[in-house]
Amino acid sequence: MFRCINCGAMHHDFHYICPRCGSALLFIGDRLLWKPEGVGVWRYRSMLPVERRVTMYEGGTPLIRRRDVKDEVYLKVEGNNPTGSFKDRGTSVVLSHALRDGVRTVAVASTGNMGASVAAYCAYANLTARVFLPADVPDEKVAQIRAYGACLVRVEGGFQEAVRRMKEEADKGVYLATTGLNPYFLEGLKTVAYEIFEEMGVPDTIIVPTGTGGLLTAIHKGFEELRSLGVADGTPRMVAAQAAAAAPIVEAWRSHAPLRPPEEAESIASAILVKEPYNGLSAIAAMRSSGGLGVEVEDDELISAVRELGKEGVFAEPSAAASLAAYHKIERPPGRTVLIVTGSGLKDPLAALGRS
Amino acid sequence: MFRCINCGAMHHDFHYICPRCGSALLFIGDRLLWKPEGVGVWRYRSMLPVERRVTMYEGGTPLIRRRDVKDEVYLKVEGNNPTGSFKDRGTSVVLSHALRDGVRTVAVASTGNMGASVAAYCAYANLTARVFLPADVPDEKVAQIRAYGACLVRVEGGFQEAVRRMKEEADKGVYLATTGLNPYFLEGLKTVAYEIFEEMGVPDTIIVPTGTGGLLTAIHKGFEELRSLGVADGTPRMVAAQAAAAAPIVEAWRSHAPLRPPEEAESIASAILVKEPYNGLSAIAAMRSSGGLGVEVEDDELISAVRELGKEGVFAEPSAAASLAAYHKIERPPGRTVLIVTGSGLKDPLAALGRS
Repeated sequence: MFRCINCGAMHHDFHYICPRCGSALLFIGDRLLWKPEGVGVWRYRSMLPVERRVTMYEGGTPLIRRRDVKDEVYLKVEGNNPTGSFKDRGTSVVLSHALRDGVRTVAVASTGNMGASVAAYCAYANLTARVFLPADVPDEKVAQIRAYGACLVRVEGGFQEAVRRMKEEADKGVYLATTGLNPYFLEGLKTVAYEIFEEMGVPDTIIVPTGTGGLLTAIHKGFEELRSLGVADGTPRMVAAQAAAAAPIVEAWRSHAPLRPPEEAESIASAILVKEPYNGLSAIAAMRSSGGLGVEVEDDELISAVRELGKEGVFAEPSAAASLAAYHKIERPPGRTVLIVTGSGLKDPLAALGRS
Repeated sequence: MFRCINCGAMHHDFHYICPRCGSALLFIGDRLLWKPEGVGVWRYRSMLPVERRVTMYEGGTPLIRRRDVKDEVYLKVEGNNPTGSFKDRGTSVVLSHALRDGVRTVAVASTGNMGASVAAYCAYANLTARVFLPADVPDEKVAQIRAYGACLVRVEGGFQEAVRRMKEEADKGVYLATTGLNPYFLEGLKTVAYEIFEEMGVPDTIIVPTGTGGLLTAIHKGFEELRSLGVADGTPRMVAAQAAAAAPIVEAWRSHAPLRPPEEAESIASAILVKEPYNGLSAIAAMRSSGGLGVEVEDDELISAVRELGKEGVFAEPSAAASLAAYHKIERPPGRTVLIVTGSGLKDPLAALGRS
C-alpha cells in the first residue's frame, strides 16, 4: 500500500506520486518483519518492499562517537557509501524495483549526489541513466556523473527546473528515480534508522541535513516501524537542518503556514538547496510528532562545521555539516544525539576550504 | 622479528628501516593465527602485530565481479575506505602502534592519499599530523588533507624530496608513518589478501597499481602467510602496473638490473608516481616467486581505463585504473583475475575527465 503524504489517499499499486493530488507517497508495508541478516542495506530485506537485484555494498556506515564532547554525540558517516552519499541506500532499492519491471532507461533530477548515485548503479546494472542537473552543481560532482557514462543534461535554473525536465521523460517509458517522486527511494533511506537502532537503541535526538525532506521522513519512518513492531519503545526527536538560503521546511514548521518556496537560493550547501521539497509535509509531520524542530544555518556556520568535523577525522561536504552547525545553534539536547553526515567532503572539496 | 628486504638482516626490535643497510623491513610474525572475527581490517587481529587502538571502519571493501567479461575478473574497490584509498588499512595499524608508544606527533611523506589517510586518523585520535607533499598533488587531495586540520608542508620536487624532508622530523621525536619506512604499514595492507581469500579462495592473478611497491608486497605477504599456515594452498601471480613515466620496478624486473630512478616523471597517475620505490625489491621478489610480471601503462590508457570502470559503476582515480589498463596489455591471464582499484575517483575527479 502507498499513502499520500498530503491528501492521505491510499493506493494499492505503485505510483511515482499520488494520482489524486500529485504529492509524494509513502510505502506502507503490511508484512514487515524485523529479522536483520547479512550486511548493509539488504541486511533489512525483511523490512523492504522489493527483492535485491542490484547492490554495490551500500549502507553499513560508521557510527562514530565524538570525542571531547561532554554530551553523547555520534556521527553517522554516510559519505562512506559507494558513491559518497546516503543516496546509494535509496538507489539500490529503487533500481532493484526498476529491474523487476524490465526497465532499460532511468531518469533522475538531482542537485548532484542523487545523480551520481543513480548513474553509478545504472552503469553497474547495465541501464542507461539520464541525469538532469541544475546549473550550480560543483565540477567534481559533474565529473563523477560523467565518469559513470551517464547522459547528462544541464538545465538553466535550479532543482525544480531539473525535475520538470525529468518528468517529461516519464511519458517516454523511462523510469523515474528521484527522491520524493518515487516512494521506494525512502525505503532504502530508512535503513539509516535500523543501523542506528542496532548500534545504540533509540537515541534522543537525530539531526538531519534537509533538502527535499526525504531523508528525515525516512529515518523517522524507520523508527516508527520498529516501534509499531514492538522492537523499539520510542522514536527520536527529529531535527531538520536547512541552509538559511532555502529553508521552506523550517519556515513552514515554525509558522504553521503552508510550504512556500524561497525567492532566491544561493549557498555553498548545494546538495540541500531545494526550493520545493517533495517530502516537506511528511518531514514536518515527523518533526511535530516527535517533538523535534527546524534550524536554519548560514554558510559561515557550515564552513566552521566542516572544519570542526575535519579535525575529528571526518571530511564532510558543506551540506553534510549542516547537522553539526544546527547542533551548535540549538539548546544542548538532553541525552544522546546523532548527527547525520550525509555526504563526503570529496564531493565538493573546494567549497568550504579552497574557495573560501 | 623484522627482516630487511635488501640485506636479509633480522632485527628483534621495531625500526623504521634496516639499521644495517637503510632498506625497508618486513614484519615476520611467529605467532600468527588464522581466526577471522568481526569486520574490516581488525577482523584479522590474530594476524596483526599490534592491538587495535584506532579504527575508522577501514577495510571490508567490495569485491565485484565484472560483467560482460568472458573471463572471471573481479574489482577490489579500495576507494570505499574511509578517506577514499587503501592507505587507511595501513594507517589504522601504524597509528595503533604509535598510540601504544605514547606518540603525540606523526609525520608522513605522501603523493596525497597517504597524507589524507594519516591526517584523518590523527585528527580522529587527537594526534598532530605533519604531511609532506610534492608539488604536483591535485587540489582536491590538498583540500582533503587541509580539512583534517593537518600541518601541511609543500616541498619543491617529487615524493623523494618529501621523504627527505620528513625524515628530518624523526630526529625531533616525531613518529614516521610512511609506506616503506614503517613495516607495520604493510601489515595493514596485507588484509586485502585475507579479504580476497575469504571471498574467493586463491585467485590466479592479482594486478596491483604500483608506486612504492608496498601494496603488492603486502598482498603477496598476506597470501604467503595463509599458505605457511596451511590455510591456503597457493599464492596468486602478482602483476605490477606502473605508469610508464615512472616504472622503476617494472624496468628492474624486466632487465634484472638494480632499481634505477627515472629522470623525469610526469603523468596523471600522481598517486603512483614514485621514482625510488622503498618496497621495490620486495615487490620484484614477489613478482618473480609467484610467476608474475610488470606492465607499464600510458596516460591515455589510464584515461580509457577510468572511463571503462566508470561505465561499470566504479569511479577510480587515474592511478587506481592502472590495474585495468595493465590487464588489457597482457596476454589474457588464465583463470580468475583480481584488479585492485586503489583509490576513489573523487580523489582527483578532473584528471581523467574534466581536464582531458
